[in-house]
Amino acid sequence: MSIDHDPSGHETTGWAMLDDGLLHQLLAEFSTFGGLPNGGVHRLTASAEDGAARDHLRVWLLGEGAEVRVDRAGNMFGLFDLAGPGAPIVMCGSHLDTQPNGGKLDGALGVAAACCTARSLLFLKRDGHAFEVNFCVVNWTNEEGARFRPSLLGSGSYVGAIALDAALAAADDDGVTAGEALAAIGYLGQDEPPPLPAAYLELHVEQDVRLEENGAQIGIVVRNWGAAKLDVVFTGEQTHTGPGSMARRRDALLGAAHAVTAIRALADRWPGALHTSVARMLLSPNSPNTVAARVEMSVEIRSADDAILSAAHEAANVLLQEAAEAAGIACAIASETRRGIRMLPGEIADLTRTCAREAGYVTMDVDTVAGHDALSFLGRCPTGLIFVPSVDGIAHNPREETAAADLAAGLDTLIRAAFALCSGDRKA
Amino acid sequence: MSIDHDPSGHETTGWAMLDDGLLHQLLAEFSTFGGLPNGGVHRLTASAEDGAARDHLRVWLLGEGAEVRVDRAGNMFGLFDLAGPGAPIVMCGSHLDTQPNGGKLDGALGVAAACCTARSLLFLKRDGHAFEVNFCVVNWTNEEGARFRPSLLGSGSYVGAIALDAALAAADDDGVTAGEALAAIGYLGQDEPPPLPAAYLELHVEQDVRLEENGAQIGIVVRNWGAAKLDVVFTGEQTHTGPGSMARRRDALLGAAHAVTAIRALADRWPGALHTSVARMLLSPNSPNTVAARVEMSVEIRSADDAILSAAHEAANVLLQEAAEAAGIACAIASETRRGIRMLPGEIADLTRTCAREAGYVTMDVDTVAGHDALSFLGRCPTGLIFVPSVDGIAHNPREETAAADLAAGLDTLIRAAFALCSGDRKA
Repeated sequence: MSIDHDPSGHETTGWAMLDDGLLHQLLAEFSTFGGLPNGGVHRLTASAEDGAARDHLRVWLLGEGAEVRVDRAGNMFGLFDLAGPGAPIVMCGSHLDTQPNGGKLDGALGVAAACCTARSLLFLKRDGHAFEVNFCVVNWTNEEGARFRPSLLGSGSYVGAIALDAALAAADDDGVTAGEALAAIGYLGQDEPPPLPAAYLELHVEQDVRLEENGAQIGIVVRNWGAAKLDVVFTGEQTHTGPGSMARRRDALLGAAHAVTAIRALADRWPGALHTSVARMLLSPNSPNTVAARVEMSVEIRSADDAILSAAHEAANVLLQEAAEAAGIACAIASETRRGIRMLPGEIADLTRTCAREAGYVTMDVDTVAGHDALSFLGRCPTGLIFVPSVDGIAHNPREETAAADLAAGLDTLIRAAFALCSGDRKA
Repeated sequence: MSIDHDPSGHETTGWAMLDDGLLHQLLAEFSTFGGLPNGGVHRLTASAEDGAARDHLRVWLLGEGAEVRVDRAGNMFGLFDLAGPGAPIVMCGSHLDTQPNGGKLDGALGVAAACCTARSLLFLKRDGHAFEVNFCVVNWTNEEGARFRPSLLGSGSYVGAIALDAALAAADDDGVTAGEALAAIGYLGQDEPPPLPAAYLELHVEQDVRLEENGAQIGIVVRNWGAAKLDVVFTGEQTHTGPGSMARRRDALLGAAHAVTAIRALADRWPGALHTSVARMLLSPNSPNTVAARVEMSVEIRSADDAILSAAHEAANVLLQEAAEAAGIACAIASETRRGIRMLPGEIADLTRTCAREAGYVTMDVDTVAGHDALSFLGRCPTGLIFVPSVDGIAHNPREETAAADLAAGLDTLIRAAFALCSGDRKA
C-alpha cells in the first residue's frame, strides 16, 4: 500500500487516511476546557476542567466504538478492536493536563492525534485492510508535574516505575492528594489497564527552535536528556522585618535567593550542555513584614552528558548548602529524583523517519530535553516520539503554536507509523 | 493621688487600680481565636477568626457599659463615659489582627490593656473620682499589613492619611478586598467614629532586644524610624525549563533573586543604620517546569536617618533595575510609600516616663523601628507609645513572649498615664 501526499498536507488518494479537520476540531474542543481569554489553557491535573476534558474524550471514544477503561491512577485507555481479541496492542497518546496558564497543544495534540489515528485505522479496517495488532488511545494522568509531583505520574505508574500508592498520595500545594482529586472528578478508576503494548507512539510539540531553525517538519526523537530534580527546603526563623539587627536574622528567602542565582550560574560552567532552573517557590509566612521562616523550592538540572549531569548534580548540592550558610539558615533536600540519559529504540525511530520521508517531509533527528510520557516506556517496549515544530520555540505559554501544515505532517507521520505497526510491518 | 507598687507587680493599695488578672484573662481569650498548637495565633484581618475576636471584644465592651461603634473601615470604638457628654476623649488601643503564624501579644496586648484601663478608670469613677475627659478603647483594622496592604489601614483611614475608598479597595493575594472581607464578617460598619482624641495612648511589645539588654521594663518611644516600602513586579516570559537555550530565557524569578540579595547587601552600606528586607513574593505560574513569567515582591527599607533612608531608597530603585537587567527581564514599581522619621511628642513621653518611674520601673527611651497605629496620630494629637520587653527580641513569631512582671509594669504605666490624662493632669 502506498499513500500519495501533496504539499498542502492533504491526501490525494481516494481514502481519507489523513483527517486533519478532525484534529483541529478535537484540539478546539479540548481547548474549551480551561480555556483562557489569552488563547491559552489552564487545566491542571484532576481539576474540574480536566474532568470535563476527560468526559469529552470518553464520550468521543465510546462514540467511535472503543472500550474505555480508567485505571487506578486515572489513566484513560480507549481500546479499538482492529485484529480481534488477544492480538497485541499499539498504544498511542499523551496527556490532557496542562501547565498553569499553558498552551493548547502540549499534550492535547498527542491525545487528539491518537484519536484521529484510531478513526483512520478503523476506516481502513472497514475498507477491508487486515490488521494484526489492535490500537489503543491513551490519556495519561499528570504528565506535567505542575499540580502533583513527580511528573509522568500516570505513565510512570502504568509501567511500574512509580508505585501506585505513592502516585495517589502525591499532594498538591494545598495538601490535596492526587487520589482525592481524581476521586472528586470521578476518575479514580477501578479498571485493569491493558497489558504493556507491542509499541508506544506519541506525537508532541517540540518546545524548542531546532526544527524551525533547520527547516524540518518532523523531529525524530533519538535521545532524551537526563534530569536531576530536587525539592529543597530552606529553614530560617520568623521575625519582624523592622526591629532587630540585620545580623540576628535568619532569612529563608535570602538563602533561597542565593540558591537561585547560584543554580543559574552553574549552567555557565557547561555552556549549552547544561540547563538549570528554579521555577517554583513557596514562602512561609509570605507576609511583607515578617522574615520568611521557610522557603520550599524546586530545582531542575538537565544534560545529555551523564558526566556533566553527575558533576552538576553534585555541585548543586554543595551550592544549596553554601547558599543556606550565607544566610545563616538550614537547607534540607526533601526529595531528589534522577532521570537517566537514554537512546530511543532505533527500530521505531527508523520506522517513523521512513514514514515521514515517504510522505515527503523533511525530518531531523533530535533530542528531547523535556520529559514526555513516551520516556516511561523506554526499556519496556519499542517506543517512538515524534516532534512537530513549535513556532519560535515557545512552550509552557499561552502563545504556544504550531503551523497547520506541520500539525498535518505530524499527524500524517503518526498515522503511517501506526498503520505499519498495526499491520505487522515495521518497514525496518 | 499616689499609687504604691510592690516588686511583684501587684498593687498594694486598697483599690484595684492594676488588674493584671484581667489582662491575662483577656489575652488568653483573644488567643483562642486563630490559636495554633504551637502557641501562636493566626488571625488575619477580617478572617473568620478576626470576626470571632471582634465579637468577643464587642460583647466585653458592651458588658462594661461602653457605647460600641464600628466605622466604615471596620475600626471598633468602645466609648466609656467618665466625664459626661461633650468632654474630650483619650483614646487607647491597638489591633486584633496578627501576622500569619504570629504571636499572641502583638496588637492584642494593646487592646486588652486598654480594656483593663477602662475598667480601672470606671472603678475610680464609681469610687468618686471626678474625671474631665472620657475614655475610648479602640481596635484598629489591619495594622499588620499582612493580608491587605498598606499596613495601619484602619488608623490611617481614621486620621485621613488613607482615603476610605482606597482602604476598602485594598485586595489580598486572592483578590478579595478589605471591604468585602469586612462585610463578610459583619464589620463593615456604618457608625460615625468619635472625633480626633485629646490624646492617643498605645501599649505594645518592643519586638527587639534593647530593653532586655539594658534591663529596662518600660520603653518610652521617642522616635520612629522612617520606612520606604516598594511593591515590585518583575516580568519575564513563561517557557519550559527544559528545552530552549539558557540564553533565550527571561526568568522573572532569577531577576527577583538578584534583587533579594542586592537589597540585603544594601543594608551593609550603612551597618546598623539601615534595615532592609524582602519577605513576600508571589510567583506566576509557580510550576516546577515553567520559567516564572511574573514575580511580585515587597521590599522594605528602614532607617532613623533621613539622608540614609533617601540614599538607600534611591539606591534600591537602581538595584532593582540592575537585577532585572541581569536576568533580561523588566521591573516595574507597582507602588511606593514612604513614612517619614518623626519624634513622638515630648509632653506625652514625659508623662509616661514619669508615670513609670513613680511606680518604680526602670525606663529607657527607645525608637520604634516597626510601624504602629500610634504613628498614625503623630502631628494630629498628643500621642504616647509604651513598649514592654520582648523575650529574646522574638517578634512576628509564635514564640513571642513578655514576662508577666513586664506585662504588669506596662499595664500599670498605661493606667497611670490614662488616669492622669483623663483627670486633666499631664504631670508635665
